[in-house]
Amino acid sequence: MQRILSSHLSTRVGATVRVAGWVHRRRLLRSVAFLIVRDAAGLTQVVVTDPAVRAAVTALPEETVVEVVGTVTANGTAPAGVELTGPAVRPLGPPAVPPPFDLYRPALTATLPTQLDHAPVALRHPSRAAALRIAAAAVAGFRATLDARDFVEVHTPKVVATSTESGADVFALDWFGRPAYLAQSPQFYKQLMVGVFERVYEVGPVFRAEPHDTVRHLAQYTSLDVELGFVDDHRDVMAVLRDTLAGMLAEVARRADGAVATLGLTLPGMPVEIPAVHFTEALRIAGAPPDEPDLAPAHERTLGEWARTTHGSDFLFVTGYPMAKRPFYTHPDPARPAYSNGFDLLFRGLELVTGGQRLHRHPDYLAALAARGEPVEPYAGYLDAFRHGMPPHGGFAVGLERFVARLVGAANVREVTAFPRDLHRLTP
Amino acid sequence: MQRILSSHLSTRVGATVRVAGWVHRRRLLRSVAFLIVRDAAGLTQVVVTDPAVRAAVTALPEETVVEVVGTVTANGTAPAGVELTGPAVRPLGPPAVPPPFDLYRPALTATLPTQLDHAPVALRHPSRAAALRIAAAAVAGFRATLDARDFVEVHTPKVVATSTESGADVFALDWFGRPAYLAQSPQFYKQLMVGVFERVYEVGPVFRAEPHDTVRHLAQYTSLDVELGFVDDHRDVMAVLRDTLAGMLAEVARRADGAVATLGLTLPGMPVEIPAVHFTEALRIAGAPPDEPDLAPAHERTLGEWARTTHGSDFLFVTGYPMAKRPFYTHPDPARPAYSNGFDLLFRGLELVTGGQRLHRHPDYLAALAARGEPVEPYAGYLDAFRHGMPPHGGFAVGLERFVARLVGAANVREVTAFPRDLHRLTP
Repeated sequence: MQRILSSHLSTRVGATVRVAGWVHRRRLLRSVAFLIVRDAAGLTQVVVTDPAVRAAVTALPEETVVEVVGTVTANGTAPAGVELTGPAVRPLGPPAVPPPFDLYRPALTATLPTQLDHAPVALRHPSRAAALRIAAAAVAGFRATLDARDFVEVHTPKVVATSTESGADVFALDWFGRPAYLAQSPQFYKQLMVGVFERVYEVGPVFRAEPHDTVRHLAQYTSLDVELGFVDDHRDVMAVLRDTLAGMLAEVARRADGAVATLGLTLPGMPVEIPAVHFTEALRIAGAPPDEPDLAPAHERTLGEWARTTHGSDFLFVTGYPMAKRPFYTHPDPARPAYSNGFDLLFRGLELVTGGQRLHRHPDYLAALAARGEPVEPYAGYLDAFRHGMPPHGGFAVGLERFVARLVGAANVREVTAFPRDLHRLTP
Repeated sequence: MQRILSSHLSTRVGATVRVAGWVHRRRLLRSVAFLIVRDAAGLTQVVVTDPAVRAAVTALPEETVVEVVGTVTANGTAPAGVELTGPAVRPLGPPAVPPPFDLYRPALTATLPTQLDHAPVALRHPSRAAALRIAAAAVAGFRATLDARDFVEVHTPKVVATSTESGADVFALDWFGRPAYLAQSPQFYKQLMVGVFERVYEVGPVFRAEPHDTVRHLAQYTSLDVELGFVDDHRDVMAVLRDTLAGMLAEVARRADGAVATLGLTLPGMPVEIPAVHFTEALRIAGAPPDEPDLAPAHERTLGEWARTTHGSDFLFVTGYPMAKRPFYTHPDPARPAYSNGFDLLFRGLELVTGGQRLHRHPDYLAALAARGEPVEPYAGYLDAFRHGMPPHGGFAVGLERFVARLVGAANVREVTAFPRDLHRLTP
């Protein structure tokens, strides 16, 4: 008999079926026992009245893997309106050791560090699994949106000879006797690939040797990177970002609807055009001194609130960040060269995306590096491509875990990461 | 005026349009000059008769980025039957330095090492770009097939505290003062995630410190990993693998049809059921001694030939590899415990995929490690999940670059890798 998932039971009332999964919970009442079996699709209630089956179920601790053959019976009070009656229960492995916290309660009561220490079982809790399903759907929406716009997916090196952004916060390793580094971003490679495909994206791990412990930083995270050529300026990039986020949210709504319901979420709407303010205006709105070189988290929160009340938008672009605060490959605003054609996107008052137009002329790169007192040699392989013709281009990067954390309202990005890596955590 | 791609010109005969791209080639004849512009979609022939425009074009070396405004004119001898006439040509950047090899010739004449040294420009050659488009389409087909079967995409750590498969061939790094390793595979994590989602996949980089230089090994490659629970045995895994490869080939045919045509490929057919032979039978077919513990490359070639002539199949499963040659988590064949429920898939006589059923009972893991004289402690975080209930499961991993190389007939996997990493190569 073919196994079916719990979500298909309601279409099979009266039939004898086989389900399989984990013992989620047992409730041993005086006259009847309930066995709740959890599978990938949800929960199945199994009603046990036979004394021999009851004895068998009593000996199966939570998380034991079992299969159940029984009759699908309508019951308005059971999950999805059906339950299995007259069951035969067979374990598919030895009795499990119960996990160190109850997975059947509505919320995990264990502290986050305990959950992370026991991630393989903590992730089985429906709330933790739901966040990861939302992440998977968001990435699917990211790709679908870009595929439809002729972007090509690329896979680039994660071990590099030169640190990408600066000398700080990189992991060093030995590469067959040569010094090497884990890539902090695919920035250089996605730019180079604009020379090949014009429009590219990559979904992959990036590594930051963050020396401090915060609720929004990980030492490895999943970066959703986009780069496109033949732009007029950063506004073309912002338009693609808007559509990409809209596609991500739409796919979360479509593919992860169960997860969204499990977490009781209201997904944000996406304006046809995301409101945008220049950095100088953002400082004014945030009540910051006009000579501040960057936005502090408190400023971002104020701006998020402003976007919500003024524009009814969960999203806000801040454009024109000062060049002094952006990496050397950033394209300046031709009209105000102290400001950049770079932007951040705030989502509910938190920086979610950084992007902008890049330099595309070889002499501009040489000048930018010289102005920062940086040598050219470490960037030789990267800069060489610009000698051979590169179009005006730009791009952005979305941190997947940060996006999901903000979407589900998680206070700590580790709540939505399967196996986080940070200053203290290298296992499991 | 909105820029259009070269592929859209044939629908716009008579119109004035704007195209943009790279100067692919110039042919300066006595009475007329031809400018060939390359964009993401292909080539556009621009006919130049005006002396001033001709002078401008003469000053634009190959790979200079230009935009051209002109009239779409039918010409049966031009690419796609159309060309641009009466053009205005404007560079979008400084004149390019011509690349060290001609990109406009049908094949790159530079040696592979030279191409790899200059990858950002070599990849612009239509043949090199085509292989990467095929890779992107194959990955899209991989995901689409698995998404349709309720698999969930996961992202797992690439830095781990314990080497996955054995102590050899790992890259070591310093993780905030602790020893750590680059992950050789997501094997343990995908198994753990079977406990959460039952069916998972991951597309991501894996790292092997391969100490020798071969045409089929890279130190970083893209692994397409699958794992699924509630299987009867390895044959359920093989069925999913067959469907996944069929989906990959179908998406290559659909999405990368232009690339397939550029390379003049005939894609392999996929049998409804891939022929399978047991390891002992494979030795006999290959003419190897019956006590050989593994298949040598020459044996694999013989088997590939046999599958083609006997079954008309480019694919062949070899099942039941000896346990002694498989990793400790491999499930034995219950009927013949010296042989495994593990398999390899040969594609045109080359090992492409390794997979099988895994152990799922905690005591079996302890026994397997003890039998190999391996300590339990380094695997504690992994093994713990099996104490808490895991279903019978199995999976497989496809090396993306190796698949594409075999598909396009590349002799060296580096020909189909954008920026390969190996014993000697850490840049660009």
